[in-house]
Amino acid sequence: MTSDEKTIKSTRIYSGRIIDVDLDEVELAEGNIRKREIVHHNGGAAILFIREGEVALAEQYRYAYKKVLIEIPAGKIEKGEEPKACAIRELEEETGYVADDAKLYLTIYPTPGYTDEIIYVYLVENAKFKSQKLDSGEYLNIKFMKITDVLRMIESGEICDSKSICALYKYANEHNLRL
Amino acid sequence: MTSDEKTIKSTRIYSGRIIDVDLDEVELAEGNIRKREIVHHNGGAAILFIREGEVALAEQYRYAYKKVLIEIPAGKIEKGEEPKACAIRELEEETGYVADDAKLYLTIYPTPGYTDEIIYVYLVENAKFKSQKLDSGEYLNIKFMKITDVLRMIESGEICDSKSICALYKYANEHNLRL
Repeated sequence: MTSDEKTIKSTRIYSGRIIDVDLDEVELAEGNIRKREIVHHNGGAAILFIREGEVALAEQYRYAYKKVLIEIPAGKIEKGEEPKACAIRELEEETGYVADDAKLYLTIYPTPGYTDEIIYVYLVENAKFKSQKLDSGEYLNIKFMKITDVLRMIESGEICDSKSICALYKYANEHNLRL
Repeated sequence: MTSDEKTIKSTRIYSGRIIDVDLDEVELAEGNIRKREIVHHNGGAAILFIREGEVALAEQYRYAYKKVLIEIPAGKIEKGEEPKACAIRELEEETGYVADDAKLYLTIYPTPGYTDEIIYVYLVENAKFKSQKLDSGEYLNIKFMKITDVLRMIESGEICDSKSICALYKYANEHNLRL
């Protein structure tokens, strides 16, 4: 009994740097009309980077929450950029590590009620250190931590970021790492 | 070297039913000014409902992705509503099951780059069937599935929703359920 929704009208509310916002009118199966508020985003790439049994985590101030969050490295996919190229670029910019390759590990829809963002999480297990290349105005600390310690930080609520939790639990599940 | 961002100016771009959108100007540590696009959301509550070793999943059309997604039951927290009350309400509306209590299981920030949404995931292991009470215009199918089958669907990409992946892997990790 799931049902498609037909777009009747679409109004662009806002065109921004990171997001665009549309207010659409849709027709439901039984003919009723509803409004849908949709945030468009070009998608993100994140990297589960494992080095000597430890995972790379970025501590970064997030304005939306007005606090520092702990997340796996990630960034916005530029127009026309391949997700894998974005993952390798962001890994180098944020951690200074250069990877020849990255393996698609998880595809995540962060919050399907109002955004069309897709986050592609890549696994990198081989990379060489070169140097960090942060964007102007970007501040972050990189730490390497044991997976079991990170599971403890998810459990305690110190790590709340969805892409990080998804990727870290998947890795723990595959490698039989438990609290 | 993480750094706070001071709000210089905040402009409300859009006030909607599900989201509000602000365009803020912030001052970075070194004095530079940047713009921040922020989607405000009142937060969501989701329910990991386990019945006889199986988990409740909702199949629901999601307009943002123009397709049917498979997710654990969830909904938007109303103004003034407690997250736990929202979880119990949504569980009953979507599945027909009434729970006396729900245990906070995970707190998730779905996509910290541009939204302040917090998703509270509750665990329910005891609930009695009454009857489904969907909102007008809400269509969804409820299925109960084995956790290992669900892990396979995450692995294959059939389940992409972040709150569902986080909650299901956490449960699998705690109960030593693996693919």
